[in-house]
Amino acid sequence: MTSTLRFIGIIHSPIKNIEDCPLQESAGAPEVEVAIFPEFIEGIKDLQTGSEVLLLTWLHKADRKVVKCFPRNNRDAPVVGVFSTRSPDRPNPIGIHTARVLSVSANSLKVSSLEVVDQTPLIDIKPVLKK
Amino acid sequence: MTSTLRFIGIIHSPIKNIEDCPLQESAGAPEVEVAIFPEFIEGIKDLQTGSEVLLLTWLHKADRKVVKCFPRNNRDAPVVGVFSTRSPDRPNPIGIHTARVLSVSANSLKVSSLEVVDQTPLIDIKPVLKK
Repeated sequence: MTSTLRFIGIIHSPIKNIEDCPLQESAGAPEVEVAIFPEFIEGIKDLQTGSEVLLLTWLHKADRKVVKCFPRNNRDAPVVGVFSTRSPDRPNPIGIHTARVLSVSANSLKVSSLEVVDQTPLIDIKPVLKK
Repeated sequence: MTSTLRFIGIIHSPIKNIEDCPLQESAGAPEVEVAIFPEFIEGIKDLQTGSEVLLLTWLHKADRKVVKCFPRNNRDAPVVGVFSTRSPDRPNPIGIHTARVLSVSANSLKVSSLEVVDQTPLIDIKPVLKK
């Protein structure tokens, strides 16, 4: 049982190699530009500068055959089921990132602090819910 | 540009109709059983009863052609870009849910409070990160 994801855009980041991505989001993550594909640009027109958003990305360099792995790449620890970890190597490698909108243009946005490699496809943008 | 999602399981819920799903997770949401497909069951073996997890679902009844919509189904409000909303009707209808693991068996788990309709496909399970 499968379905087809349609990428809505792509991320332009100064991080060119996956080895340069820290294990989790950190204060050192760079600003990135998110280019939105033409058929989806109407979807971003009400995003507000300064607002917090969830970005869903497709971690396209991931190994999708992984069902068990070492936690946080620690090879001295016992292997665990992948769904107990945040490993990007997993059957459906969807990244979930919280970021702040720095600016919005007609067909792109800039956001703060995103730990993904250049050319990572974008799947979705959702507002962060206020608690 | 597309990719293929592989469903890792399916949700068995007492909610049989989409009209019975509240707009956001609420205290009244039911417990559900999450059945994991055979090729992925090794991935759940280390999930801990009582732990909090993120479940990613595929909202299979969604209208994927939506790029603009009424916010929270309020037809008196102006139409907004879909990425400023949490509408399930969107290009890639991925649901993100926080739930607590109530029990784990060899090929399924029970979790608290999930607002999805019966037979919703499951995409991923991730631990909630401690802040």
